[in-house]
Amino acid sequence: MARDADTQIPSAQALDEFHALLGAKGYCDDAQQIAPWLTDWRGRYTGKAAAMLSPANTDEVAALVKIAAMHRVALVPQGGNSGMVAGATPDTSGNAVILSLRRMNQIGPIASDGSVTCGAGVILQNLHEAAAKAGRRFPLTLGGKGSATVGGLISTNAGGTQVLRHGTMRALVSGLQAVLPDGSIYDGLTPLKKDNRGYDLKHLMIGAEGTIGIVTAAVLQTVPALVDRCVIWAGVATPQAAHMLLLQLQMKAKEALEGFEILPHRALDVVLTHISGTRNPLAGTHAWHVLVEIVQDDMSRQCPQNLAADLMGLAIESGLVEDAVISASEAQAEAFWKIRDSIAEAERAEGPALQHDISVPVADMARFISQETPEIETLFPGTKIVAFGHLGDGNIHFHVKAPKGSDAAVWYAAETSRISGHVYDRVTAYHGSISAEHGIGQLKILELARQSGPARMMALRAIKSALDPHGIMNPGKLIS
Amino acid sequence: MARDADTQIPSAQALDEFHALLGAKGYCDDAQQIAPWLTDWRGRYTGKAAAMLSPANTDEVAALVKIAAMHRVALVPQGGNSGMVAGATPDTSGNAVILSLRRMNQIGPIASDGSVTCGAGVILQNLHEAAAKAGRRFPLTLGGKGSATVGGLISTNAGGTQVLRHGTMRALVSGLQAVLPDGSIYDGLTPLKKDNRGYDLKHLMIGAEGTIGIVTAAVLQTVPALVDRCVIWAGVATPQAAHMLLLQLQMKAKEALEGFEILPHRALDVVLTHISGTRNPLAGTHAWHVLVEIVQDDMSRQCPQNLAADLMGLAIESGLVEDAVISASEAQAEAFWKIRDSIAEAERAEGPALQHDISVPVADMARFISQETPEIETLFPGTKIVAFGHLGDGNIHFHVKAPKGSDAAVWYAAETSRISGHVYDRVTAYHGSISAEHGIGQLKILELARQSGPARMMALRAIKSALDPHGIMNPGKLIS
Repeated sequence: MARDADTQIPSAQALDEFHALLGAKGYCDDAQQIAPWLTDWRGRYTGKAAAMLSPANTDEVAALVKIAAMHRVALVPQGGNSGMVAGATPDTSGNAVILSLRRMNQIGPIASDGSVTCGAGVILQNLHEAAAKAGRRFPLTLGGKGSATVGGLISTNAGGTQVLRHGTMRALVSGLQAVLPDGSIYDGLTPLKKDNRGYDLKHLMIGAEGTIGIVTAAVLQTVPALVDRCVIWAGVATPQAAHMLLLQLQMKAKEALEGFEILPHRALDVVLTHISGTRNPLAGTHAWHVLVEIVQDDMSRQCPQNLAADLMGLAIESGLVEDAVISASEAQAEAFWKIRDSIAEAERAEGPALQHDISVPVADMARFISQETPEIETLFPGTKIVAFGHLGDGNIHFHVKAPKGSDAAVWYAAETSRISGHVYDRVTAYHGSISAEHGIGQLKILELARQSGPARMMALRAIKSALDPHGIMNPGKLIS
Repeated sequence: MARDADTQIPSAQALDEFHALLGAKGYCDDAQQIAPWLTDWRGRYTGKAAAMLSPANTDEVAALVKIAAMHRVALVPQGGNSGMVAGATPDTSGNAVILSLRRMNQIGPIASDGSVTCGAGVILQNLHEAAAKAGRRFPLTLGGKGSATVGGLISTNAGGTQVLRHGTMRALVSGLQAVLPDGSIYDGLTPLKKDNRGYDLKHLMIGAEGTIGIVTAAVLQTVPALVDRCVIWAGVATPQAAHMLLLQLQMKAKEALEGFEILPHRALDVVLTHISGTRNPLAGTHAWHVLVEIVQDDMSRQCPQNLAADLMGLAIESGLVEDAVISASEAQAEAFWKIRDSIAEAERAEGPALQHDISVPVADMARFISQETPEIETLFPGTKIVAFGHLGDGNIHFHVKAPKGSDAAVWYAAETSRISGHVYDRVTAYHGSISAEHGIGQLKILELARQSGPARMMALRAIKSALDPHGIMNPGKLIS
């Protein structure tokens, strides 16, 4: 098994070799400059790093990995440092240097088939803009788009709100290049539709959180630009009704259905309370709300507003939807999305909560929410559940809020393992995943081991130690 | 590294334990009954096996793998034995038993989301029929559908003629179950749309040719049944014109475009000569032919015949197509497909040929065909190239036919490594794959090592030896 013990505090010689390789632009050991990159985005983990390395290209990455392997220096790859599970934050041993890919931010031309080659450091929003300039669209999007990088999105197999139609990051990567722990370069930077040359190393690197190699570049797939879109805000009685609405829309709208999110009345209330400039899209009160995105990317298809009106007519007639409003302008569509996207921020203002990024089979998620919510609120008196998010993917952010007036530090210390442990036990009972789209990182490393059967753990450990025998690649993340 | 030497001729005790576990229905050591399963489908490899094991369920597979691991017996998993690269044929050491999954042929009900759970031994054609009965369709299809099994299709990441729209087998597997080389069961038999619990073991098992575990069951995704379809047969001047036609059709027909195959005049000629009941769909002579499948799986969309007529009108006007005919009936559609599907058989009647299942980026395949064909015919005088197949996937079956009158055995012995080696060198120069859809098996194991950089080979070997340290899983296939 790979052992952290194999790595050691970087020697002066190792740091000198990094410096000589990368020069002043690529090497920094100034503690003040490094400091912001030592703490994870949610502010829960802080580590140490002797230096931050910022290579300019893949050859420099390969050379620095060879130096790290020789001197047993731990490498913690980092993009925008906006991950949710502290997967890009060094541990406190001081054995690590940060490997920032942010300088590798080249975006190639968009090819005739819509593919585009990007460096690992390309920021998602810049890729969105480059695709738009070429009359195309890169469909994956998420809250951290202004900082999240292609390398990080690949290494965490990122999700977001448009997965229903276009899939997670995995589905959008046609090929990739990575530096392996021995410093060799795996060159899969070619968009092959069919390729059966042994174990699929592309899929192995996607979601591996930098623990068996450093993704340096990728060929990504863009899709046709949108002609138009609209957003439906609908009130429904139960998660079951929302799920039946999903099935009806998938049947009727097919590729025009691009997003399907759910939130409870409680979440809407909290947003209206804490987020300025938001207002309730519907006049009445509904127990649950659904946000549906209907798109048009082909002039020959029905305009999205008309399609949405037909769909909601049918849904109301079928008794699935209590009331609905269709965005009449892009500003209104944005306003509906703003409510959805503000839930996390509004919930933070309410007080402490334990957040769980979980998935179960799509067909089972409504039952999970309905059955587990009252169970947990009873089991842990005073807690309140807010379950919201990507119902269309079977992926919910399941927040357990502390009893009113709880002291955050005290409550987290006392309840985290009990409550989160229970939630993950229930997810496992539903044959679900304790990490739907955020990854394992440091946050869930013990829970992954606890929830997984021996076959999965044996395979993960065998792969890690085979590819990274000295444990220099992002130690303490994903698998220990 | 895993060594074949770790395995040994099965002892009487090992065979007794297999027999006791599996009973009379699951154990056979009758040489005559085993004989047909010792030779690969193309008849080029014949091996030895002391017994054939046919477990009834996953628990039996797990138990027999434990016995095999204990006694260092090599296991050669086998479905329909219709693979193209001898990946399911034992070697000649006599250290192996065949592990047939054919009894595990249960097909579950089709769920509301279209997913269906299948045992590894389900025959593709039976899955087609089960899906059709439920008003759905399993889109992957290929010549061996009457014998190929789900386990084999997954383990080789099979392709076929409908990959353009629906992807290879990999894209249709939502979850899978596998027995790992230590006999533990990896249970990923749940259709999660988002799941980031470490290295993706599902994708690792797909295409692994049974060398790191035995796929025992899978959750597969069906798609809506077709309402209607039609097939276009078009004459074009060059592979470049065919590629431009592909781009135009992708832009205009979108999801209605389900197949795009190419063949040269030479291949059509050979089919018309050797296959009874075939006739030329077009009156004139064209250097190249394209077969396009246009489908309708949604009543609200344009009928495929009208769409095809519009598309061909535009294509002829654009100068991409010289002449075209659209199938007016299902019988005519079948007749067009029969020509395409008969090329391999017709070519066999013509004499010896070296076949290469290769891919390059879709945008480069026309150039590959045009540039490499005359080069190779010059380099190896008397040979003739027939390049045909899945242009829409960048995947061509590139046949190099022996000079007229060649003795098959003599020519194969003298030319195989020279000619195939050259073809694969050229594929690699185009950043392509020497195995697009058939896998590596025994046939390409040396060529894979020769064409791959050190990073790929290091990673493949590390994974193999980490997961299968005693080399009991299908030794001598994929990686040595």
